[in-house]
This record gives sequence, C-alpha cells and structure tokens, in this order.
Amino acid sequence: MKIYRYPEIKTWPELTRRPVIEREEISRLIADIFEAVAQNGDKALIEFNKKFDKAVTPQIAVSEAEIENAAGQISENLKKAIGQAKDNISKFHASQIQQAEKIETTSGVVCWRENRAVEKVGIYIPGGTAPLFSTVLMLAIPANIAGCKEIVLCTPPDQNGSVNPAILYTAQLCGISKIYKTGGAQAVAAMALGTESIPKVYKIFGPGNQFVVAGKEYAQRYGVAVDMPAGPSEVLVIADHKAVPEFCAADLLSQAEHGNDSQVVFITTDFKVFNETIEAVEKQLKKLPRSEAAHQALQHSFFILTENLENAVEFSNLYAPEHLILAVEDFEKYIPMVQNAGSVFLGNYSCESAGDYASGTNHTLPTNAFARNYSGVSLDSFVKKITFQHLTKKGLQNIGKTIEIMAEAEGLFAHKNAVSIRLKQ
Amino acid sequence: MKIYRYPEIKTWPELTRRPVIEREEISRLIADIFEAVAQNGDKALIEFNKKFDKAVTPQIAVSEAEIENAAGQISENLKKAIGQAKDNISKFHASQIQQAEKIETTSGVVCWRENRAVEKVGIYIPGGTAPLFSTVLMLAIPANIAGCKEIVLCTPPDQNGSVNPAILYTAQLCGISKIYKTGGAQAVAAMALGTESIPKVYKIFGPGNQFVVAGKEYAQRYGVAVDMPAGPSEVLVIADHKAVPEFCAADLLSQAEHGNDSQVVFITTDFKVFNETIEAVEKQLKKLPRSEAAHQALQHSFFILTENLENAVEFSNLYAPEHLILAVEDFEKYIPMVQNAGSVFLGNYSCESAGDYASGTNHTLPTNAFARNYSGVSLDSFVKKITFQHLTKKGLQNIGKTIEIMAEAEGLFAHKNAVSIRLKQ
Repeated sequence: MKIYRYPEIKTWPELTRRPVIEREEISRLIADIFEAVAQNGDKALIEFNKKFDKAVTPQIAVSEAEIENAAGQISENLKKAIGQAKDNISKFHASQIQQAEKIETTSGVVCWRENRAVEKVGIYIPGGTAPLFSTVLMLAIPANIAGCKEIVLCTPPDQNGSVNPAILYTAQLCGISKIYKTGGAQAVAAMALGTESIPKVYKIFGPGNQFVVAGKEYAQRYGVAVDMPAGPSEVLVIADHKAVPEFCAADLLSQAEHGNDSQVVFITTDFKVFNETIEAVEKQLKKLPRSEAAHQALQHSFFILTENLENAVEFSNLYAPEHLILAVEDFEKYIPMVQNAGSVFLGNYSCESAGDYASGTNHTLPTNAFARNYSGVSLDSFVKKITFQHLTKKGLQNIGKTIEIMAEAEGLFAHKNAVSIRLKQ
Repeated sequence: MKIYRYPEIKTWPELTRRPVIEREEISRLIADIFEAVAQNGDKALIEFNKKFDKAVTPQIAVSEAEIENAAGQISENLKKAIGQAKDNISKFHASQIQQAEKIETTSGVVCWRENRAVEKVGIYIPGGTAPLFSTVLMLAIPANIAGCKEIVLCTPPDQNGSVNPAILYTAQLCGISKIYKTGGAQAVAAMALGTESIPKVYKIFGPGNQFVVAGKEYAQRYGVAVDMPAGPSEVLVIADHKAVPEFCAADLLSQAEHGNDSQVVFITTDFKVFNETIEAVEKQLKKLPRSEAAHQALQHSFFILTENLENAVEFSNLYAPEHLILAVEDFEKYIPMVQNAGSVFLGNYSCESAGDYASGTNHTLPTNAFARNYSGVSLDSFVKKITFQHLTKKGLQNIGKTIEIMAEAEGLFAHKNAVSIRLKQ
C-alpha cells in the first residue's frame, strides 16, 4: 500500500485518479453473443451454459419444484437473517414513496408529477463463489414497492445445472417466480431482446463481471435502460483521533476482499491512528480466507495523513467514493460538506457491512467516481415520474399571450397557433 | 398520413414501432472531433466554428459586453413573456425539493437520504433557425434551484460570430455567465473534456441534431452523464366526442412542425371528430410557414379510430409518447391508466405549447418510446441522492448477527469481521 503524508493539494487530482482498468477488446464477442441470442433464443442460452458454465440445462427456467426445494437447503438462521434484512430494506425503501403535490403555477394552471413503475425490469445476479443473494433483496424489494409488473431474474447455473438455493429462497421470498439459468452477457442479451422463455424488459439492474458490464452497455442500443455505469468497488475511510484502528482496518479489508481491482483509501489527521491502522490491516489480513484478493487490492490503495478533517472531506469529494466512512467524533459537522459519495457511514459503529446487508440502505452504488453524477439505486430507479397538467380556459388566457410571444420568437408558428385558436373561441 | 380504423390489437406492436432513423456512419467523425478538442482545445473550437458555422470567433467565451447588450436587442414584450415563463417553471421545479426523512429501521439504526447538486453541469442550446431560449429556462432554472455550482452553456454562433440575443438574455436572467460560442459535437466534447476557456462538467443536458446526440453518447466514455437518450419529438392525442377538432389539429401540427422526423398520432372513438380533425389538419397546414417540415412529418404519422377510450390509452401505453394529450371529458378517470408517457396534457385547453413554454413543467422529455424507462428532466436530474446511516453500538448489536450470518453465507469473511470485531469490544 502507498503512504502519503500531508500531500499537497495540487497532487490530489493525480491521487484521486482511479487505477486504469484494462478493458480487453471484448466488444466483438459481446456483439456475437447478442446476435446468437437474437437468432436462437433459449437454444443459444443452453449452448452458452454448456460452453461458459460447464452446465447442462435442458430448461432455462428454474422450475417451481426447484424454487420450493430451496427453502429446505438453507439454515433457519440464514432464513431469519434474510428476513430481518428484508424488513429493514423494505422500511427504508417504502419511505421513499412520494405523494404527488399539485402546484397551481398561475391561476387556472395546475401541474404535478405522478410515479409509474417501470413495467418490466430485469435483475442480474452473478454466480460464482459468492452467491449474492443480498443483491436479490436490494433490487427485488424496491421493484416490488414500486409496483413493477414483471420482474425477471437471471443468474448463471453451477456445474450441476442448479442455482444456489440462497438466491432461489431470497427471490421467492421477494415474490419473484421468473428465474432463469443464464449468466454473463448472454443473460443481459436475453433480457434486452427476449427469448421463448425470458420476457424482454425495459430496464436491467445488477452487478457482474466485465462481460456483464459490457453487455449492459451494449443492451442500451436496443432501447433498454440500465441502473448505472459500473466499476470496481471502493471505500474511503476518514478517521480522527477517536477512531478505533482495528475497526478502520476491518472496514478497509471488507472492501479489499471484493477483488484485486477494489480500491481502499484511508485518511486520518492523527499520527497514532495512522500507524496503528496500518499495523491492524497487516495483522487482520493474514487471518482472511480471501487474503490473496485483499492483498492485491491493497497494492494500489493508499493511506493519507492530512492536516485537518476539512481537508480530508475535500479530498473525498474529489475522489467521490462509492462508500465513505466518517469515523470521526463530530460527524454531524462534516455531513453538509460531503458533496460526492454513494453512501455515507457515520461514527465508529456504522460499518460498511451494515449497509451492504441489513441496515436498510441500498448497496447498489455508483463506483469509479460516478458518485459525482449518479445516485445509488433506490425506489426512484424503478419508477418514472410523469408530469401532468390541466389548464382551464381561464388558465390558458392567463398564460396564452406569453406562449404566443415565445413561440413566435422561436419561429414555431404552429405552437403559437395551438394557443391562438383556443383563445379565439 | 395513414389511417387505421379499429386496428386489431395484434397489429399494435407494428403500429407503435418508431420510424427507423437512418443514422449515418458518423462515429468516426465524432471520435475525430473529440480528439481535436482534446489536443487543441479552444483553437480546435475556433476552427470548427469557421468550418461548420462559417463564423469567425477569435474568442470562444461570450463577452460581458455581449451579454449586457442582449437585453437591448429584444422586445419588452418578449422579456415580459420570458419573465412569466420563468416564474412558473421556477415554482413547479422548486416544489420538487424534498426534505430528508430519517428512518429508524431497527432500534439504533437510522438511515436517510440527502440531496446534493451535481456540482458542474453543461447546457447545450442548438442554434439555427429556431433560437431555443425556452430550453435555457428549462435547464438553467432547475440547475439553479438544485444548487449546481458551475453552469456552463454552449451554443453555436451565427455567421456574424454572434449568439442570438434571446438566448443571451435568458441565460443572464437565469444567472448564467459562462456562455461559449461552440456547437455540435465539438461543444459536447469541450464540456466533457474541458478546454482553456470551457470548464469540464459532470453532466450534459440539452437537445441537438444527430451530431450533438452522437456526441453525448460518445462523451459518456469519459465518465460524463447525460440527461437522457434522444430521438425525434412526438405527440399522441386521444380525443372523445367532446374534443374540438380544430384544437386537436393545431396540437398535432405544433408537433409536426418540429421536423421531418417528428411523429404525430391521433386516436379517437368518435367518427365525426375523426373526420373533422383530418380535415382541420389539411386546412391549417396550408397556413403554416413551416408547412414543408410538417407535411413531411405527417407522411409517417397516423390517425386511428378505436372502439373505446380504454383501448386508446392502452395503445398509447404501448407507444409511450413523449407528449400525450387527453382531450377527453372524463380525463380524471383515465389518469391512473396512463403508464408510459413523458408529459400529459388534460382536457381541451391544455395544449402542448403550454408545457413547451410557460405552464411550469419541463419540456425536456423522453422520446422514441424511452418514456417506458426514463423520466423527463426535473430537479432530480440535477441532484444526486446520497444515503447516510448512523448505527449506535446498540444498533449494531441489534442487526450484527444478521450481517455476520449473511456475510458468511456469501463467503465474505472480512465483511463479517467488520461486525464481529466491533461486537467483541
């Protein structure tokens, strides 16, 4: 890991630059996959399962029996845990429902917005070593609260042609019955284009590897929307003299274990906390089952000493981290200064894992400095806001002249005429 | 124009398909323009102004004197009109400010969202025959209300190297002082990359021709966000027996005059209204200065007779129009059925022009069936919502077990450890 003591402000833009991701030239491959799915539908997906996942899947759809059996395959403890997480995530996302307020902008002119769910949404859940059933909660719960009519879930099968039971259990708990065994760019293609089994959707959500990310980018050519652009996961921890080095180290490592390309940044004003956190990271790292990934991630991560917390928050704003932990006593004071971040964790007991799983906030967040221009997933991600307006005859009289003058000045005479013809009546 | 009487439901998907836009192969050109702007900055923009706009512009930035002189060049009537529109747009967009509500999802676990403005935004305003100063209002007003720190406006110069005074007047009225003479993909490139004069921004808004659209698509490679994907403008009018054919015709034509590729759709349940609207379109068309564009647009537009209004709204939902006019007596009844639309106009006096200019709603809306998965521009487009959470020690104890169990089941032991190490203390 890299260490910077009191780096000059002019060096910050360089420090906050993300490690360049070597994007292999996979666009040709993605185009071929989309073409195959467009041409051969389910048959193509079955072939891809054989080729990429070494799985034989005569049916792409997960059967009712498979879904029902899932509950028996996971522990009661895990079910209870998923239940508590679901409650909290539901509470927080339900609180995001907004009522339409009608505004009379001029007498007789009433305008408002109403929410409508995106009718058809697709959720992608990666397979592999870590079955991300928590992401099922994070995407299916707001989709349900929004009222999406069709929720489709795709996830790759394991080598036995099965889907991890924790994913199936969580999906059915969230009322999802349309679950399909397909992964990678082909799953994205299937949801963007539709196949015999898989319905075409309007918006695709969820994390994934470089093929999934490239697939989501490609899918937008077909009019499909996606949750947000993607990059490697990150955390930035700001600590003062009251922070606990062991806690900070644990938070940094919980991000680092995500993968080689994760980035973790630690900033403190306190020399003792600085040194002890570095020591604690080294110590805790040794005990981790995924220490190899975490070790790799730490190579390009950095630890910074700053003069004061204002500087630290300013650095963070420039970096725009996915996760920001303010392990400082006076965190209330620094909240208004936070400008760019996906999700913020306050004080010594708000670890990132809390938001990753069970506090209620969403864990689908903008990475790679996209926190400067994107929000994380929320109920908003599953709805469109449609504007409505009603003008009475009097209302149109009150603003008609204005419309006529402006339309004429823009050279749009039919726009003007739509008013004139009504005012003449 | 095409006429369909009681088309069968199975034909709807074909009817609602948008006319295919012939996208010239301009991607190479766009890449070259970005490259030139990246290499030569302002110098490249000055060259492009000569080449594409036949304009000599020694300075890219509009001078203070030019901005100050603009007010003298437009009529008092137009100033008054712009003032009333500004008031209404401000009122409606200010009503979209939301307060952060704190939610205690579990005892000791408090979560909420706070809005932060996108710090740096760019507004593109097309030049040409129609100086779209109304779009300056639609984008600058919410940017100001959101609190964007840096608002940059780019618009192409005319052949005298000047910017239309109505655009300059409106921009300064909205507090924008950073105005630059550059158009097309090079303006987008300048805002995405930054030049000596033009600051790099995080999100780019505004309409434009195919080069601007392609430029906005390309700009996203540099981490810049854009307002929404673009396509030709559209209106769908649903009328019952109480609708006024002359009004409907005027609304259809006000959309048609936007350009050859605009699409207008008329659906009614009433045979008399059907015939009279078609007649009125023909009649009004002859009187329009832009009748050629409107005539072209009408070629691929269509008029439909349906059995009932439910059918009409269902057809509209499948079509997902940018603008939907419900020229029906009982419009209240049909509002809940509207699923996919950008902006909806209710009754006989809510013409589309009202929303285009002065009622208060935004006119930057999803076209090309994107109303299925995108909202129009609103205050939301200029803010990010950041989640915050605070857990007390007790709070972490209340959900800690759940996090530990879930993290372990996902194979993420460092995530688990971040909780365990705190609970052990």
